[in-house]
Amino acid sequence: MTGQNVDRDRFWMAQALALARRAFDEGEVPVGAVIVREDVCIAEAYNLREHSRSPIAHAEMLAIQEASKTIGNWRFTDTTLYVTLEPCAMCAGAIVLARIPKVVYAANDPKAGAAGTLYNILQDERLNHRVEIVSGVFADESSALLKSFFQQRRRPPDK
Amino acid sequence: MTGQNVDRDRFWMAQALALARRAFDEGEVPVGAVIVREDVCIAEAYNLREHSRSPIAHAEMLAIQEASKTIGNWRFTDTTLYVTLEPCAMCAGAIVLARIPKVVYAANDPKAGAAGTLYNILQDERLNHRVEIVSGVFADESSALLKSFFQQRRRPPDK
Repeated sequence: MTGQNVDRDRFWMAQALALARRAFDEGEVPVGAVIVREDVCIAEAYNLREHSRSPIAHAEMLAIQEASKTIGNWRFTDTTLYVTLEPCAMCAGAIVLARIPKVVYAANDPKAGAAGTLYNILQDERLNHRVEIVSGVFADESSALLKSFFQQRRRPPDK
Repeated sequence: MTGQNVDRDRFWMAQALALARRAFDEGEVPVGAVIVREDVCIAEAYNLREHSRSPIAHAEMLAIQEASKTIGNWRFTDTTLYVTLEPCAMCAGAIVLARIPKVVYAANDPKAGAAGTLYNILQDERLNHRVEIVSGVFADESSALLKSFFQQRRRPPDK
């Protein structure tokens, strides 16, 4: 990975982290996501499960929904998705279906991660699309935010 | 499984198949889904990936989105989801997140099935919810419809 890519990944992950902080402030599990195409943000979202009362309102899904309106196609060519927590099975499946070429995530999710932890749906040779993965960008910051949220709530993490 | 349950499953799968046929007529990969609570249909949907230009517009996801409005909670207690094709990783992940207790599906999906074929996300002990699975209800009818669709399109199946 070149220095320019590292800078770019940190730049966009900082935006995703800012969105995660907005989720935190609204009482939602703090996860944020942005989708970038040719250095332009085409979608941004944060987890809204409680407010929307929808089990599928994860940051990645809302960002994919928004981006599909901009792209006008279900194939997300030349895009990168940045997310502050390792995608779950639902979100990883959606990323493969959208043919997103690259995912950058911050913290691993030991309970539900599907980009290498419990599964690696993003790089399964049996599926019809493989995703480049970069992990660990601002992992400590994302983990600290999640930890702080669950300490405040005094309930087990259940994204 | 009791005879009454078999009859119930066939009744609701027939509704899901009717929705799959509507998808077929609209040029969409023919998959239909219904969500039932206490013998009442609370959501019905069919695959709309092409028309909605969204990679996540699978029948199950659209049904879950609709049901969440009726239920008003992200926990889908006492529901059964009927779908004409084995759920993919995205949809299986969503079913677990929604805590749906039971899934009945018709045909297996050898390319992307995540309810026993490539993965069994619905019954993974590491996740925080396990789903009862019934499969094979009107499997031949669903397979024939899918086969007919792809023969007409002359392209490889790519839900």
